[in-house]
Amino acid sequence: MSVIPVKTPSRHYSIHLFREDFARSARIIREHLSENRVYIITDKTVSRLYRGKIEKIFGRFFETVWLTISDGERHKNLITCEKLLTQLSRLGAHRKSMILALGGGVAGDIAGFVASIYMRGIDFIQMPTTLLAQVDSSVGGKTGVDLSTGKNLAGRFHQPRAVLIHTTFLKTLPAREFRCGMAEVIKYGMIADAGFFSWLEQNAPLIKKRSHKALERIITTSCRIKSKIVGQDETESGRRTMLNFGHTLAHAVETLTGYRQYNHGEAVAIGMVYATRLSNATGVCKRDESLHLIALLKKFGLPREIPSLPKSKYLSVMRRDKKSGGASLKFILLEKIGKVKTQNLSLEVIGQCL
Amino acid sequence: MSVIPVKTPSRHYSIHLFREDFARSARIIREHLSENRVYIITDKTVSRLYRGKIEKIFGRFFETVWLTISDGERHKNLITCEKLLTQLSRLGAHRKSMILALGGGVAGDIAGFVASIYMRGIDFIQMPTTLLAQVDSSVGGKTGVDLSTGKNLAGRFHQPRAVLIHTTFLKTLPAREFRCGMAEVIKYGMIADAGFFSWLEQNAPLIKKRSHKALERIITTSCRIKSKIVGQDETESGRRTMLNFGHTLAHAVETLTGYRQYNHGEAVAIGMVYATRLSNATGVCKRDESLHLIALLKKFGLPREIPSLPKSKYLSVMRRDKKSGGASLKFILLEKIGKVKTQNLSLEVIGQCL
Repeated sequence: MSVIPVKTPSRHYSIHLFREDFARSARIIREHLSENRVYIITDKTVSRLYRGKIEKIFGRFFETVWLTISDGERHKNLITCEKLLTQLSRLGAHRKSMILALGGGVAGDIAGFVASIYMRGIDFIQMPTTLLAQVDSSVGGKTGVDLSTGKNLAGRFHQPRAVLIHTTFLKTLPAREFRCGMAEVIKYGMIADAGFFSWLEQNAPLIKKRSHKALERIITTSCRIKSKIVGQDETESGRRTMLNFGHTLAHAVETLTGYRQYNHGEAVAIGMVYATRLSNATGVCKRDESLHLIALLKKFGLPREIPSLPKSKYLSVMRRDKKSGGASLKFILLEKIGKVKTQNLSLEVIGQCL
Repeated sequence: MSVIPVKTPSRHYSIHLFREDFARSARIIREHLSENRVYIITDKTVSRLYRGKIEKIFGRFFETVWLTISDGERHKNLITCEKLLTQLSRLGAHRKSMILALGGGVAGDIAGFVASIYMRGIDFIQMPTTLLAQVDSSVGGKTGVDLSTGKNLAGRFHQPRAVLIHTTFLKTLPAREFRCGMAEVIKYGMIADAGFFSWLEQNAPLIKKRSHKALERIITTSCRIKSKIVGQDETESGRRTMLNFGHTLAHAVETLTGYRQYNHGEAVAIGMVYATRLSNATGVCKRDESLHLIALLKKFGLPREIPSLPKSKYLSVMRRDKKSGGASLKFILLEKIGKVKTQNLSLEVIGQCL
């Protein structure tokens, strides 16, 4: 197991990485409790696969109260939040209660947001069960839900008390979900660590076999990169925006295809190819690094082609995206693999590369 | 005009008190803008009475975009929030946009909460139009909405950039709404300022005539008391709870009567009488101060009698109320007029005084 510290201005906490031992997680959770009870927000799939086992082990340490939501991004909305908030209130949750977010990105984002607004904010702990959540969404305190007009438009920065990662959850993760997480893993190589990018190129088969060793390496490296960036800029006023590499187009792809055709990681894969091409077209990136990126994405079965939709639609959604404020759009561009920079681009240039 | 500083750990800002001059408010708002536009969230009544005038004056300084919600506590919910959030997104509001909360407590609480979660938090300014909002809800950064299970159960602490109070709004305030605000004004005398309480006793006729001088005195005194307390304890972990004097029963009265029969101030008036009797019954308050309180409430036409509902219902709702965590309930009790203390009371004692 390994421990990665996260130091943000609002809170210091740790990411703990385990293989399977849920009792160790239970002990860490118990240290943070002020009543002998945890409200576990999870989704139907995780509940079906793991509730029995976790309930049995956690039950030795504290009472577990389970709140189950429907799977999928389309349930990540304020209606689901209202249901959970009302349930918490009926069950007697109070200001010192603890929420455990057990699940993928959707469960984590919703549970964290519910924790951030229930009685003006209570504590929560993340226990991510998908690769995407383990390397990305569970770390850094971004919580929130989607509106009909776009992704993550309502939310808060609300740091968890701890993040507890068990690689055992990845054994049952469907291949497509695993690929999805790999897109964000590859992103960390692209934005901050050329050595890690090369290691991914060389170890693709081992990773795809999901050996604990390989998983430990990709998760700890990803979490270290993310927590360092988040520690420097908790509320995304500067440096943290680099984590959005590939995400501006990715959000547009997801919005325009109704969050159904592509999952988040697939959209990010496409968005990174686009951002890399944009970097090359504007001369920010000297060599055509998109060839390396495309080759690596291909190894993991991730898509590389932008869905053919009218340019005007892409531009309209990207302008509304939260990263934009005016007539030009701020993009994270690649200088070379392992290094990115922020630059304002005119809508004309952005349109040309679509 | 007068200026009252508010110094909380998360933000320092000022409360500005004016009679009517909206141009002065416009200048203060303009100082906080990063685009030439303000999103004004208001209710139908305020829009009908003041939109024309304010739009004309503000229009000389910046563009105003109006979002109007329905009046009344029963619209203070997540559904109204979702509508506003989606509208903001459609209108192109971004991270640097500014919301102006123009209205009573409901509009202020909703607009502030929407600001606190739109794109994980944007700036807002309070321009309260009711006495209740001017002396209480617009100051201190509490924002939120009700759930079906209770008041203000979902929300955030989110401090405004400024609070702009115009006494001219009170000219058109219905008598019942004015009384409602007076309950909170009387509360400040009860919890922190015996001299102010006496002044209220002596000047009731002048206050009821709503002379600018009298209004200025009650608003500045109330805001000074509240901002001092909030500065010492922004997130209500200690001292700030004294502002909840009378509120535990008040929330129960509101919840049990469906937020219709009593407005907030009326419920607080009843709650203060109850809390004072409780203080007397438990020996915390030596003399029976409830006689003074009842006499003053009567001068302003505020109710003093607890609605006759089953004790068990009151107890059940109060236990669920956010101020409570366990088997006993924390109450703010009166030592003497101008001084309160916090004490845990058994459910038995609480029931006896109902």
